[in-house]
Amino acid sequence: MKNVNKYEIYEIALSGPAAGNPFTDVDLRAEFCFINRKRVMSGFYDGGGVYKIRYMPDCEGEWVCRTISNAGELDGKEYGFTCVSALPGNHGPVRVSNKFHFTYDDGTPYYPYGTTAYNWTNQAPDIVAQTIKTLETTGFNKIRYSPFPKHYLYNTNEPQLYPYEGGIVGGTSGDDGKDGAVGSASGVGTGPAPDPFGGGAQAAYKFDFMRPNPAFWRQFEECVLAMEKLGIETDLILFHPYDCWGFAHMSRNENLLYLRYIVARLGAFRGVWWSMANEYDLFRDRNEADWDLYAHAVEEWDAAGHLRSIHNCREPYDHAKGWVTHVSMQRYDYHSHVEQTHKWRERWQKPVAVDEICYEGDIDHGWGNISGQELTKRFWDVVVRGGYCTHGETYLRDDENLWWAKGGWLTGSSPERIAFLRKLHERIGQIDPSPAMDWDLPWGLSGKQFNYETGNRFQPVGIAADKMLCYFSFAQPSVKTFSLPADAKYEIEIIDTWDMSITKLDGVYSGACRVQLPGKPFIAVLFSKTVD
Amino acid sequence: MKNVNKYEIYEIALSGPAAGNPFTDVDLRAEFCFINRKRVMSGFYDGGGVYKIRYMPDCEGEWVCRTISNAGELDGKEYGFTCVSALPGNHGPVRVSNKFHFTYDDGTPYYPYGTTAYNWTNQAPDIVAQTIKTLETTGFNKIRYSPFPKHYLYNTNEPQLYPYEGGIVGGTSGDDGKDGAVGSASGVGTGPAPDPFGGGAQAAYKFDFMRPNPAFWRQFEECVLAMEKLGIETDLILFHPYDCWGFAHMSRNENLLYLRYIVARLGAFRGVWWSMANEYDLFRDRNEADWDLYAHAVEEWDAAGHLRSIHNCREPYDHAKGWVTHVSMQRYDYHSHVEQTHKWRERWQKPVAVDEICYEGDIDHGWGNISGQELTKRFWDVVVRGGYCTHGETYLRDDENLWWAKGGWLTGSSPERIAFLRKLHERIGQIDPSPAMDWDLPWGLSGKQFNYETGNRFQPVGIAADKMLCYFSFAQPSVKTFSLPADAKYEIEIIDTWDMSITKLDGVYSGACRVQLPGKPFIAVLFSKTVD
Repeated sequence: MKNVNKYEIYEIALSGPAAGNPFTDVDLRAEFCFINRKRVMSGFYDGGGVYKIRYMPDCEGEWVCRTISNAGELDGKEYGFTCVSALPGNHGPVRVSNKFHFTYDDGTPYYPYGTTAYNWTNQAPDIVAQTIKTLETTGFNKIRYSPFPKHYLYNTNEPQLYPYEGGIVGGTSGDDGKDGAVGSASGVGTGPAPDPFGGGAQAAYKFDFMRPNPAFWRQFEECVLAMEKLGIETDLILFHPYDCWGFAHMSRNENLLYLRYIVARLGAFRGVWWSMANEYDLFRDRNEADWDLYAHAVEEWDAAGHLRSIHNCREPYDHAKGWVTHVSMQRYDYHSHVEQTHKWRERWQKPVAVDEICYEGDIDHGWGNISGQELTKRFWDVVVRGGYCTHGETYLRDDENLWWAKGGWLTGSSPERIAFLRKLHERIGQIDPSPAMDWDLPWGLSGKQFNYETGNRFQPVGIAADKMLCYFSFAQPSVKTFSLPADAKYEIEIIDTWDMSITKLDGVYSGACRVQLPGKPFIAVLFSKTVD
Repeated sequence: MKNVNKYEIYEIALSGPAAGNPFTDVDLRAEFCFINRKRVMSGFYDGGGVYKIRYMPDCEGEWVCRTISNAGELDGKEYGFTCVSALPGNHGPVRVSNKFHFTYDDGTPYYPYGTTAYNWTNQAPDIVAQTIKTLETTGFNKIRYSPFPKHYLYNTNEPQLYPYEGGIVGGTSGDDGKDGAVGSASGVGTGPAPDPFGGGAQAAYKFDFMRPNPAFWRQFEECVLAMEKLGIETDLILFHPYDCWGFAHMSRNENLLYLRYIVARLGAFRGVWWSMANEYDLFRDRNEADWDLYAHAVEEWDAAGHLRSIHNCREPYDHAKGWVTHVSMQRYDYHSHVEQTHKWRERWQKPVAVDEICYEGDIDHGWGNISGQELTKRFWDVVVRGGYCTHGETYLRDDENLWWAKGGWLTGSSPERIAFLRKLHERIGQIDPSPAMDWDLPWGLSGKQFNYETGNRFQPVGIAADKMLCYFSFAQPSVKTFSLPADAKYEIEIIDTWDMSITKLDGVYSGACRVQLPGKPFIAVLFSKTVD
């Protein structure tokens, strides 16, 4: 019997019917059984008469499986494999842990420090390679992107491949409207005319949304795998509204076929999260019931139970819903956002990933022109309040290859500061906001102060946290009197979050103590309880 | 007949009874008549048997006046004077203008750029002199302070003089409680015991709150006059809660006597505003009806009709009330404040002075440790939204002489930037927030776009403002596409608010125009309509 490492992909490939529409005519799934557990995973058509079923085993031991299909040649096949211990560095998919946090499936801590390159997988091979190279040396361990190409500012190039059979049928630049089939019927990209987001595409398209393009998906999978190799989770955006091809305006059946196909292809990849949409509220032809329907479909089809969320533009989604595993926020107010992180935790009782808080850059638009200093500050403001944060970069290059859109190069000043914060965060452990925040100073606590069993209740006041972190943000005190628990002793480290230096003070501290600080902005202080 | 310059003080001095309590026994006032106008002003006892009546004439021509008193020797005296044109530089008291703004009484524009030194007049003479010297070279034209001494952090010294007869009756440091009279009865300062604000005073006091100390008030008047000479308005804080002498806990009658006395002494000074209280909501023994009663008393007794407001700590006052001439705000949220300026205008339909938004400094407390860069940013954020802003400085000095408390020296980086902004503001004129604010960019407009007659209605969209100012705050675009009115031409100036440079672009602009910007934070852009 074949050996499969835990959390790796077990794949069955079968020959089957190539005639008709194999994507819709053929129903294929498999039951994977381990002792008394049974999971069902859909298969998918990979072109050339080949069907595949992928599964990620998460328990060591003997597994058996059996196919079920309406095509006789694919039905009733039986297989077995032995799941053996995971390869070094493979900790499995990320799960919610301790209500507001994350760990890998094997219990290894995971603190998401994400970046954003929405459309990187659809760029020319040299740019794709450059993106991977860039990410090798940053501290990011999550990246948000979508398989669908993007039509938006600084996103006007056609993808290398299309996710469906079809392509350009109208003229190119200056020649639009030639094709009489342009319209809003299913399968027809309407071109940029009804698209409110601008951009320069001048083509019209015709796709068969019932026929995914396996070549496109094989190429996309390579990108997901490349991220896995770097230890970077793929926060996979299933739908986004920035479209001129029609991918954002498919029918319900077409959307469900798409979701089933992508979950079948990618659901066995350990490093995938499902982001139902980027800016769901910009889809004018979908309501909340639609989103719930699609999310429930993903939930049902995804045997691995990957993380699921949905990202807003204006109004946050009702993240209390059962299918939402964690909050994926975009600031919905230009001025008041990261300071709300602990309130968002409280409101939805889930981990909060603040996935969009303006990008470091210098473009025309308010969502993409904050400084590296400002973005670093926002990361700290989120983390000290018990949340997680995501980076993006939009410096205007002569070649208009902006990281946030196409990947490629990072030139900003925030990534190394974010990596510095991540390293410190991993040392501190999971951070929860103190129930006793100062009005002018947020406090994060770490240790056993949080009763995860009974919900959102913190330690009684007076029981000392193992570690306490405060962040002064724009304030620049030269001295601060702290009121530490009197029954514990702490070491103190002064952290310059911009210069990335950590200065440990001599001695141990207890009760009220007056501490000299650098008198400049962006300082944090970490208190670590000493073990007697 | 004597000549008096418009807006200067006409003073009558009379000899009267010195026995008993002249402050309460003697009622003295005078009617000042000009053609068919009549104003009544109270007199006050200045000690040594001398009574005075002060009046600031605001119309040129012949004035007559007649005293009214229950003391026969003070009653029925008649005087006349000729009010002649104002001396150069004296524009009279500041008035509300165009609903949301200010001018001097003679129509000269006035844009308040205030600072704060709550307790400067009660310091030693060399510090008082130093404060005046410092203010000679700054751009501030308003200052907030109180005649009452202050008992608070960094305010632990006794004043040079007390505003009432009396003083320390208990022991000094380490000797408190010796005096049996310590208690909460009127006229008795309770010492620091019931004071929640800390500080080191250890004395107990006994004052006669029915007997003001004329020497104290003469000294205070010298300070107000020194400010007038520098063109600086006195935002006179009538009450504040930071007290260990009992001045914050006088009875209603004592408060009314105090108000009548101070209005009689200082109401004829052109450069005085009445701030009913600093942090009114920290007075636990006064409710809103009390504050209204005191404010109405001031309004009635103040023949010159000076500006009146009241300053909050937590909740803003109901500034819609008739006696409130303008809003005097303290940020009541640590993170969300200056961005609300135009909403506060809208809410109260009055000028908005944001009088406390954290001080530039480095002390322990969040209200006093922001950088000069942050404070400068907040000034711009207020001004571009049609408000006015007030400075303060709290750098920790070895001698604990902090500007915000005692005056003295300014060492921060914001004052010269604030002066730069004031100069630009005076060039632009009164700024109103655009009705069409960008979500990521506030716009202030100036010119005839605002219909002041009919209230808060702006120009119809499409009618071009004379000047338009936008402020990018923390954003750092390297390019911006502006949509200017197509039917007007504008000159463009790029303003670096931190480096204090103004760069005028070549040419004139109209309609959509793409402008290169410095790609760094704290940039503003000013558009000035050209006159054909």
